[in-house]
Amino acid sequence: MNRIDSTKNPKVKNVKRLSKRKYREREQQFVVEGWHLLEEVLTHNVEVQELLIAENKDFPSEIDVSRLLVTVVTEQVMNEMSYTETPQGILAICRMPAQEDVKIKQRNNYLFVDGVQDPGNLGTIIRTADAAGITAVILGEGTVDPYNDKVIRATQGSLFHLSVIKGELEEWIDACNQVKIPVFGTAAGQGTTHSAIAAQKGFALIVGNEGAGVQEKYLELADQNIYVPIYGNAESLNVSVATGILLYHLKQSI
Amino acid sequence: MNRIDSTKNPKVKNVKRLSKRKYREREQQFVVEGWHLLEEVLTHNVEVQELLIAENKDFPSEIDVSRLLVTVVTEQVMNEMSYTETPQGILAICRMPAQEDVKIKQRNNYLFVDGVQDPGNLGTIIRTADAAGITAVILGEGTVDPYNDKVIRATQGSLFHLSVIKGELEEWIDACNQVKIPVFGTAAGQGTTHSAIAAQKGFALIVGNEGAGVQEKYLELADQNIYVPIYGNAESLNVSVATGILLYHLKQSI
Repeated sequence: MNRIDSTKNPKVKNVKRLSKRKYREREQQFVVEGWHLLEEVLTHNVEVQELLIAENKDFPSEIDVSRLLVTVVTEQVMNEMSYTETPQGILAICRMPAQEDVKIKQRNNYLFVDGVQDPGNLGTIIRTADAAGITAVILGEGTVDPYNDKVIRATQGSLFHLSVIKGELEEWIDACNQVKIPVFGTAAGQGTTHSAIAAQKGFALIVGNEGAGVQEKYLELADQNIYVPIYGNAESLNVSVATGILLYHLKQSI
Repeated sequence: MNRIDSTKNPKVKNVKRLSKRKYREREQQFVVEGWHLLEEVLTHNVEVQELLIAENKDFPSEIDVSRLLVTVVTEQVMNEMSYTETPQGILAICRMPAQEDVKIKQRNNYLFVDGVQDPGNLGTIIRTADAAGITAVILGEGTVDPYNDKVIRATQGSLFHLSVIKGELEEWIDACNQVKIPVFGTAAGQGTTHSAIAAQKGFALIVGNEGAGVQEKYLELADQNIYVPIYGNAESLNVSVATGILLYHLKQSI
């Protein structure tokens, strides 16, 4: 079995570099940490190129590593590589999957994300879209990379459960128009209260950046703009909470 | 004007100590950082005991500091005291308000929080409760302290907009029974899908810990247990997202 004892080993540097989007895209690799996420990638056909395990840890019997490249590292090396404050002692270098071929179909549901920048928010949005049974999440320009480690952690594995792809939202809105599924834009106080909208068999919802919201050009292209009313004194809702309220309202009892 | 040039000044140590709950409770003080939160405390009658401003910053004209104790600090001192990675240069030491006297009334809405531990989640829950027009949030034992700096930041000021108090949830459920407002427990897959429940004029909702959920003893005391259905492959929803979906569903079109 391979072994790394020194924090100066080039592999340590490689893992640390993969915390940067540019490097992930160049190498077409990303890192997942922890036992739960390792199980998620293994059961969802993500190619694990190398497993790095701390020498004081063991693989649980339900994880079959017989066909995987496993490298044992010292605790110090694990701490140096890890993106988290309290490493679980397991880390996988994965091949970035090819972008899935998503088609817009009637009766399916889509979430378009316009420039969400906080990794925790995007991860929670993807997890919520998965829970709500959304077919695909399309990430527009300016949105944080879904292979960012904080995004992956916040998705709790949902990133590997549904199609999450990057795209030009204008083209995707157009694709919805062609199959005649309604596209809902969201803008605080603009358009119709969400509760006035009936549940939908097929739809696309656009959610936007934490500060600026959905760009005007997309709001203009949407069939209808909706918002969650504020009854109290908060200025707004967190974008992932608003996404949950809207997705579950639109899907309600269908 | 007072001035602090040295990171060894005892006030620096005091601010740093206030990041700990024990010390906040002993001193009955807490810290808010940044311009937005300073405005929130000033407009919501929180007593600001001292304002600490970095020497390269100025008060905007809309903030009246004439009756406040202001201390100018060097940038280095501000960086040392600050709880954030990119300090805005303004920090206020506030007196912890006395616990508000909350009464359970018909037609009002309450949120009971059982053991939510992540500060970001609790802050987002309080912000969401504010947006949904909830009357009061009661924090049961095991819940993170609302005066934790990460909670305050995630509330975006909502902590000062509605009553947020600590309490024994059993007593509060009892108080709801006495005025006959329904108490809804939440447990994944247990009870009734939320969408089967009609909107309510007055209600209390109990939400629970990120891993363990709402304690069994509270679920037994609830009038009804409800859950948000999972249509996809996510194991669960984030607790603040679930809280938003449930609060907005229960309040819907009332």
